[in-house]
Amino acid sequence: MKREFAVIGLGRFGGSICEELSQQGMQVMAIDSDEERVNKFSSIASHAVVADATDELVLKSLGIRNFDHVIVAIGDDIQASILATLILKDLGVNKITAKAQNDYHEKVLRKIGADNVVHPERDMGRRIAHNIISKNVLDYLELSDEHSIVEIAVNEKLGGKTIIGMNIRAKYGINIVAIKRGNEIIVSPQADELIKIGDVLIVIGADSDINRFEKKVL
Amino acid sequence: MKREFAVIGLGRFGGSICEELSQQGMQVMAIDSDEERVNKFSSIASHAVVADATDELVLKSLGIRNFDHVIVAIGDDIQASILATLILKDLGVNKITAKAQNDYHEKVLRKIGADNVVHPERDMGRRIAHNIISKNVLDYLELSDEHSIVEIAVNEKLGGKTIIGMNIRAKYGINIVAIKRGNEIIVSPQADELIKIGDVLIVIGADSDINRFEKKVL
Ligand SMILES: Nc1ncnc2c1ncn2[C@@H]1O[C@H](COP(=O)(O)OP(=O)(O)OP(=O)(O)O)[C@@H](O)[C@H]1O
Ligand SMILES: Nc1ncnc2c1ncn2[C@@H]1O[C@H](COP(=O)(O)OP(=O)(O)OP(=O)(O)O)[C@@H](O)[C@H]1O
Ligand SMILES: [Ca+2]
Ligand SMILES: [Ca+2]
Ligand SMILES: [Ca+2]
Ligand SMILES: [Ca+2]
Repeated sequence: MKREFAVIGLGRFGGSICEELSQQGMQVMAIDSDEERVNKFSSIASHAVVADATDELVLKSLGIRNFDHVIVAIGDDIQASILATLILKDLGVNKITAKAQNDYHEKVLRKIGADNVVHPERDMGRRIAHNIISKNVLDYLELSDEHSIVEIAVNEKLGGKTIIGMNIRAKYGINIVAIKRGNEIIVSPQADELIKIGDVLIVIGADSDINRFEKKVL
Repeated sequence: MKREFAVIGLGRFGGSICEELSQQGMQVMAIDSDEERVNKFSSIASHAVVADATDELVLKSLGIRNFDHVIVAIGDDIQASILATLILKDLGVNKITAKAQNDYHEKVLRKIGADNVVHPERDMGRRIAHNIISKNVLDYLELSDEHSIVEIAVNEKLGGKTIIGMNIRAKYGINIVAIKRGNEIIVSPQADELIKIGDVLIVIGADSDINRFEKKVL
């Protein structure tokens, strides 16, 4: 049995969720008050419906209460986003993810029962700011407030050394969990593995230690 | 010497970049044609200026050519985004990152010389779609088209086993690089480490292998 999703608001964010869920074989109902937007999704989603999500009767008639998970991706119209979330909760929708414009909006969404609140532009802005600052840091995954996994591009300073030769575990307390070399991923590389310029090191450790490593060697 | 950045367009995305760069101690000039937006950033950025980025003379007078990296975060007005990028390139700005609304917009931005083109809403939509589909996958880092590092929440099925007991390396070809337990991160856990419900496993491997593991054990 496929799980059923509904996405309300087919802007770039909601539209992307709708596309990706559909591509992964999920049943998705795409909802927007703008007919043009809805038409774009009629061939992508299982159903595409023109509807005002602030109208309780309309949502009821779509059988929205039977959906496993509804994503509210309405943007600029904060009032509509809040009202839609309130109605969905009232109708007994199982799980609601809502997009917030700011911290105040998030607080309200949580109070009225949104299970997840997301800030796509803010989070992506932070991510990109980090990439901009450290030229050698290509991407990262935050494990906790203080620990991350980071992709570090190997430059002239690091290239040509072995892992043991760099001595980064002892010196910085961080670990190389993998090396990306072209299309190949070398997991748990040996101590005598030779690092080449153009390789990407996947390192894990405390943010402060990773920062020290970046500053010293890059 | 601090490096110098300028952010044009102080929406949620551009605003977030501006904030994060400033918090990291960078010099940032914040530019928007909307005075209200600019005022919000006067205490955050090093300089905050009301300016129309499609006006070459204005950009020139701001000395924009001397900036290391300019981020064009203009959204809905695609024409303004393209024109601003063109002028920046013309004036000899070292590095330009621009936000695109769609693939066509991206193509044009690259043709006229943007060094990086980003799609914050689309990328975040994909990310969130994946989180929505797999309830146990909390977050992930794509290493390549076919390899990822994934955070997997430990449920009743996995809890209480040791790493060697799960035998996931032999069975699925994936590796546990770390375990997140509360605020603690256990890097390169020992084979006899006992996995507990509530732990988060950080695993690395081929996407297909990770998917098999998810489906079998979760
Ligand atoms: N009451 C409503 N019912 C249904 N859809 C709505 C409603 N109000 C707004 N929408 C739709 O939500 C979508 C997203 O809204 P908007 O474009 O303001 O958000 P955004 O945050 O700028 O989007 P993006 O994801 O592109 O950044 C639009 O397509 C809009 O038509
Ligand atoms: N010609 C211009 N010069 C300077 N700033 C501009 C220009 N045109 C638009 N902007 C500013 O760019 C900012 C972002 O634009 P807009 O809100 O359309 O984008 P968005 O993609 O919806 O933003 P968000 O990042 O919030 O999703 C706005 O604050 C707007 O005032
Ligand atoms: Ca947006
Ligand atoms: Ca952090
Ligand atoms: Ca918008
Ligand atoms: Ca992938």
